Amino acid sequence: MEALKQRIRDEAVVLKGNLIKVDRFLNHQLDVGLINQMGEAFKQHFFSTKVDKILTIEASGIAIAAITAQYFDVPVVFAKKAGSRVQVDSVYSTIIHSYTKNSDATVVVSKPFLNPGERILIIDDFLAEGQAVKGLLDLVNQADATCVGVGIAIEKGFQHGGKELRSMGIDLFSLAIIAEITSDGIRFD
Amino acid sequence: MEALKQRIRDEAVVLKGNLIKVDRFLNHQLDVGLINQMGEAFKQHFFSTKVDKILTIEASGIAIAAITAQYFDVPVVFAKKAGSRVQVDSVYSTIIHSYTKNSDATVVVSKPFLNPGERILIIDDFLAEGQAVKGLLDLVNQADATCVGVGIAIEKGFQHGGKELRSMGIDLFSLAIIAEITSDGIRFD
Repeated sequence: MEALKQRIRDEAVVLKGNLIKVDRFLNHQLDVGLINQMGEAFKQHFFSTKVDKILTIEASGIAIAAITAQYFDVPVVFAKKAGSRVQVDSVYSTIIHSYTKNSDATVVVSKPFLNPGERILIIDDFLAEGQAVKGLLDLVNQADATCVGVGIAIEKGFQHGGKELRSMGIDLFSLAIIAEITSDGIRFD
Repeated sequence: MEALKQRIRDEAVVLKGNLIKVDRFLNHQLDVGLINQMGEAFKQHFFSTKVDKILTIEASGIAIAAITAQYFDVPVVFAKKAGSRVQVDSVYSTIIHSYTKNSDATVVVSKPFLNPGERILIIDDFLAEGQAVKGLLDLVNQADATCVGVGIAIEKGFQHGGKELRSMGIDLFSLAIIAEITSDGIRFD
């Protein structure tokens, strides 16, 4: 998706450890018009896929998932970091390692919101080693639901998550795949 | 907003301590169609207000703010809980007490995303004692920006936050104001 790639070229900040900060438009300040175009691009790719529900993870997946869901006319469920005392339902639970935060987090989905047989589209902002998506897949599997696809805004193609998910036969669609980050800038696949 | 009130009557779960769980449609599973109607209602109320940016707080404010922002054609900024090691900009910072989680959280906004003179509309899902909104107001004030209004999905009218904010002269608009929770159910103002 060219508009997203251009925005990354223009405004992403590259930090040590190949971390890419896109918080001017994607995960702190949100360019809602750009995110709307992203939702449309996900719909174009998954137009023939029957989707019952979109699953994402708090916090930075929520805006993309919610706006994308308008194109699919389905509910969103976002996996929550464990800890709220309002939680009373029993939950599906998994542990996700965040390289960005350098920590493990337990994330949960209340059982009523993922059901056997449901066709789940996973949406998230970043894919690198694939920890978050694999955690979400684990939740989908625990519920005996089916993952019908994974839509990612920015995939770091030089890390292993994308290859691993595609080798599992998952329909993984990333709007921008970064091939390489050099001192000259960001190169896309 | 009648559709929201009806949904609360039908699907909200009342817990001890007057906690209200609306995670079937508003803050875990998201009814994106309902949230879109909420965005339209916020726009109807604030139609004559010049808004430069919408400010909310992770995680449950993000979907409402992002979908509402489509009606205003402005960016969203969400205040983040402190802790990510991607954070490098200097930040505005405030402490918000959550009664739901029974803890204090430091939340931050990177300085480039709140600027002097900007006209900020605050959007959030719940208003009870007003801790979150007061924290966001503190961030707006630190940036020498101006809060031009506050839009809330569900206000607990029997707690003090709404009264306090209105007495400060803030244009506070809540889509559903709960007057009372009794064993017979939820009564709205």
